[in-house]
Amino acid sequence: MMMLKTHSCGTLTKAEVGQTVTLNGWVQRRRDLGGVLFIDLRDRTGIMQIVFNPDFSGDALAIADRARNEYVLAIRGEVVERDSETVNKNLATGEIEIRVTEIEIMNAAKTPPFPIEDGVEVDESIRLKYRYLDLRRPEMQKTLLLRSKAAKIFRDFLDGEGFIDIETPILTKSTPEGARDYLVPSRVHPGEFFALPQSPQIFKQLLMVSGLERYYQIARCFRDEDLRADRQPEFTQVDIETSFLSQDQLLELLEQLVAKLLRETVGVELQLPFQRITYADAMNKYGSDKPDLRFGMEMEDITDIVSSCDVKVFASVAASGGVVKALNAKGCASWSRKELDDLQPFAARYGGKGLAWVTVKEGEWRGPIVKFFKPEEIAALTDRLGVEEGDLLLFSADKKKVVADVLGNLRLRIGKQLGLIDESKFKFEWVVDFPLLGYDEEAKRYVAEHHPFTRPNEADIPLFDTDPGQIRAQAYDLVLNGYEVGGGSMRIYQRDVQELMFKALGFSTEEAHEKFGFLLDAFDYGTPPHGGFAFGFDRLVMLLTGRTNLRETIAFPKTASATDLLCDAPSEVDITQLQQLHIRTLPKAVKQTEAAAVGSTPQANE
Amino acid sequence: MMMLKTHSCGTLTKAEVGQTVTLNGWVQRRRDLGGVLFIDLRDRTGIMQIVFNPDFSGDALAIADRARNEYVLAIRGEVVERDSETVNKNLATGEIEIRVTEIEIMNAAKTPPFPIEDGVEVDESIRLKYRYLDLRRPEMQKTLLLRSKAAKIFRDFLDGEGFIDIETPILTKSTPEGARDYLVPSRVHPGEFFALPQSPQIFKQLLMVSGLERYYQIARCFRDEDLRADRQPEFTQVDIETSFLSQDQLLELLEQLVAKLLRETVGVELQLPFQRITYADAMNKYGSDKPDLRFGMEMEDITDIVSSCDVKVFASVAASGGVVKALNAKGCASWSRKELDDLQPFAARYGGKGLAWVTVKEGEWRGPIVKFFKPEEIAALTDRLGVEEGDLLLFSADKKKVVADVLGNLRLRIGKQLGLIDESKFKFEWVVDFPLLGYDEEAKRYVAEHHPFTRPNEADIPLFDTDPGQIRAQAYDLVLNGYEVGGGSMRIYQRDVQELMFKALGFSTEEAHEKFGFLLDAFDYGTPPHGGFAFGFDRLVMLLTGRTNLRETIAFPKTASATDLLCDAPSEVDITQLQQLHIRTLPKAVKQTEAAAVGSTPQANE
Repeated sequence: MMMLKTHSCGTLTKAEVGQTVTLNGWVQRRRDLGGVLFIDLRDRTGIMQIVFNPDFSGDALAIADRARNEYVLAIRGEVVERDSETVNKNLATGEIEIRVTEIEIMNAAKTPPFPIEDGVEVDESIRLKYRYLDLRRPEMQKTLLLRSKAAKIFRDFLDGEGFIDIETPILTKSTPEGARDYLVPSRVHPGEFFALPQSPQIFKQLLMVSGLERYYQIARCFRDEDLRADRQPEFTQVDIETSFLSQDQLLELLEQLVAKLLRETVGVELQLPFQRITYADAMNKYGSDKPDLRFGMEMEDITDIVSSCDVKVFASVAASGGVVKALNAKGCASWSRKELDDLQPFAARYGGKGLAWVTVKEGEWRGPIVKFFKPEEIAALTDRLGVEEGDLLLFSADKKKVVADVLGNLRLRIGKQLGLIDESKFKFEWVVDFPLLGYDEEAKRYVAEHHPFTRPNEADIPLFDTDPGQIRAQAYDLVLNGYEVGGGSMRIYQRDVQELMFKALGFSTEEAHEKFGFLLDAFDYGTPPHGGFAFGFDRLVMLLTGRTNLRETIAFPKTASATDLLCDAPSEVDITQLQQLHIRTLPKAVKQTEAAAVGSTPQANE
Repeated sequence: MMMLKTHSCGTLTKAEVGQTVTLNGWVQRRRDLGGVLFIDLRDRTGIMQIVFNPDFSGDALAIADRARNEYVLAIRGEVVERDSETVNKNLATGEIEIRVTEIEIMNAAKTPPFPIEDGVEVDESIRLKYRYLDLRRPEMQKTLLLRSKAAKIFRDFLDGEGFIDIETPILTKSTPEGARDYLVPSRVHPGEFFALPQSPQIFKQLLMVSGLERYYQIARCFRDEDLRADRQPEFTQVDIETSFLSQDQLLELLEQLVAKLLRETVGVELQLPFQRITYADAMNKYGSDKPDLRFGMEMEDITDIVSSCDVKVFASVAASGGVVKALNAKGCASWSRKELDDLQPFAARYGGKGLAWVTVKEGEWRGPIVKFFKPEEIAALTDRLGVEEGDLLLFSADKKKVVADVLGNLRLRIGKQLGLIDESKFKFEWVVDFPLLGYDEEAKRYVAEHHPFTRPNEADIPLFDTDPGQIRAQAYDLVLNGYEVGGGSMRIYQRDVQELMFKALGFSTEEAHEKFGFLLDAFDYGTPPHGGFAFGFDRLVMLLTGRTNLRETIAFPKTASATDLLCDAPSEVDITQLQQLHIRTLPKAVKQTEAAAVGSTPQANE
């Protein structure tokens, strides 16, 4: 008969002193002090010191002596207070210990390839291969516990607000626009494929057509993209759609949700409403559509001031439709020449051709370009940039987008360097009024910035005829500390507006139906005004737990090359399996030949 | 500015009389009574009668007159009591109506292909193609609402009991045993494939190795099997695993969970603990491992009584190791000869060669075989079968399995026919002590009945050496009204037991490692005793809502040929997509040739 736990290691307190308890757990470490054996026994809740002493442990001592690190033990004994000199203030349970009278070694363990403790220094590929051991480490368990708790908070809130949890298909149809799909060959229908969903977008809009009114799902999504540190081929989003709400009503609801999430996970009380910043302002002031607003240091447009100055590059950029902007790095006038020089390659990384600088020391402007400024230009810059003694001014002149990238990233770098960022802070903001359309220079047409069903701002609808690029969308992102943690939009529900949109995108009615057939059909049968949102759940958990990598927030993640090192996936499969699916893999030679052929006739099989 | 709802149609009551409210919804029907327009407005919560009258509606009447069925309306008006003669007792909101003063037609609608109402008689393929309209029907919305609520109840309970919601991968590795996998070709790793999980089995066991102790997930699973009415290629299970619990403790916990589920969804208070019946008893008494225990009518083994009787087939079956069993269909002696004859093809469908019968009328046994019984055999049968006036006795003689199938299905048929089944009842039972191993006649070896990590009953371990087929497993199914709604097992965690199991299955250590490599590796590092369970969520929802088809419980299901009629999936894809995935589809001719070749050398590509 197994000895099964009556209590958990980490939750016992002095209140249980005198009780006989049974614990199950893993050996964290063992010490033999003059014939008395101390074992730190670990379970999900924490660590308990258990003591084997010839005086009270009998045979259990000899059995315990066989236990090594990570052995699974069942022990029974009395909870006692420790002597005052052996109290361990670092341990939640440090005031008590168990005097063991019975023991069962439930299982032995090989020596793990890395120690089961926080902050372990080991190659990540080893951690991923032995993920089942990596997940024993307290920081990993804490992260997964918080993730589970966060999911529960989302669900409780949304359920309370009348949102219905509805599962949408994983085996679905390849979408015509968007990222690369993962495909699944059909056995029953030779030559045909399912696709894994990049998001439940179409289904959630259909559910609004169905009158379900409020939908949510913590949904797995799939994108076969080239991975970066913060991408995973499969990821999780908290997916939301609602009918009969305005954008403001929806954002307010989401703020309440986020406030509850922060309160109940990290104990932070957020101030509501969140700051709202337009896309235009975000780009102009911070050079980013997801600005980190934990600190200021806004960039200033000085094109008007320098448009006729003698700094040739400034004047010529201004003349050719570009912009000149400046950052004031407060108190950085003391930076060395080397530090200033190091900024040049940094700017180049973001497409900048150079970065001009001015230091303000002993009341004087210094630097290579100062001599080209007229006194009234210096006066105007001093005023606009709030220049004071000790400041470092940094100038970028280029196309608008390049200047935004260069100074936006410079702002973040300097902000970090100067310690302007309060790392304990959770600063949320809404970025609103995203552009509806972007111009694709290659395709020579407008493309949807969000998706083709995003609703334009009512007031901007006349711009479809005159300047589509200026139309603002009812689209919004939620940004936390400079990371996009969610985004959404109100959707077009009126046929005439949808037609304006398709026209702007250059789709004929036929093309639109080819691409979005059944969704457009559905819209004909009484579509309510609706809109939605999706939280990037993995990233949100990452930020709440202070991790810097999405892989730390996922129980069984994939590497940057989309590999599961634990179970060795993907892998080769039996050829009979492929036969049943009516496919075969391309031999290398064939692959190249066919690839070349396909390059010239991409639609060959249609 | 849109008029957005302040209230919902179905939840307004007399308490709101006198208030001005705004409603949004769909036109369920309209009636024009002498210039006064009545519209039933429908939303998720129900229906509200709204009234347009020249006396108080002004321009709204003319606008409303354009509205047709399924138009989306926003209306504003005062809640008033109806005249006593117009109160509609069939409607929850039948005592009130809205006097409309403002209206906005939010959207028009084409005439739907079938009426938006319950019990609609329309081909299911039309319903699936227009699923977004089908889901407007109240019975579909009620089902999805209950499904969402059921999921929430599962989560609340499990969360309260310390279970952690952990997501496991959808892109994972093809498993060596079990059903057919869905495969996903890898773009990054040419010639390699992910597989969609048939269940999170391996991951949940790994999480126990990780010491997470209590895991759950409402998990999507995938099986590429030939579909039946109650199968879907993707389905949902409530997946549970726990460490340091005994089977009894786990079943007790699950009973509490199910009791809460029934209480909060259908308002039924279940009696705990659930009846437990061993697999052997279930098969012997009901001919099924998922007996419907809402009624009795057990079959009785009468082999001993008839082994030397003059009914030749009984005696010869008994002599050759088969069994003879009987059902007593109470009060069915009056069945016509035709009714009795109709039972023969029914028995044949389950492999039976025939079905003998006896009726008991006016104190006399009648039927073709009666004359072959000796008086003492009739006496013994009367006693064993509790024979009374008016009974119909039905006999099957064959191999044990055939008799079980024939009489088990006959029992269900007659139980239904006689109205012995209380359709309002929710009768749960545990079927326990499943066999650990079954003998595969084709492969000439034992195979795992549940899976190769299922823990044998402690007491049966010596049988590995003597009679492995007799070993009982710590495996259990939960049965509701004759449907399996869940199953699970305690897992092997001891290396010596695992080795006995592999030996019984005929796997060498090397073969076992080839098949289950990383899981066996994991088991070496300190595995706790653990076990788990999975509820078939779709089927459970089906039974709770009284539906007879899994498709009715899934928002966007697939047909029996694994097709999504709404979005037309699977479908052909662009050849460039296949190129990127390093695969191509087989042309028909090639397919046959290669298939033939593969038939002779199935391992050719390994």
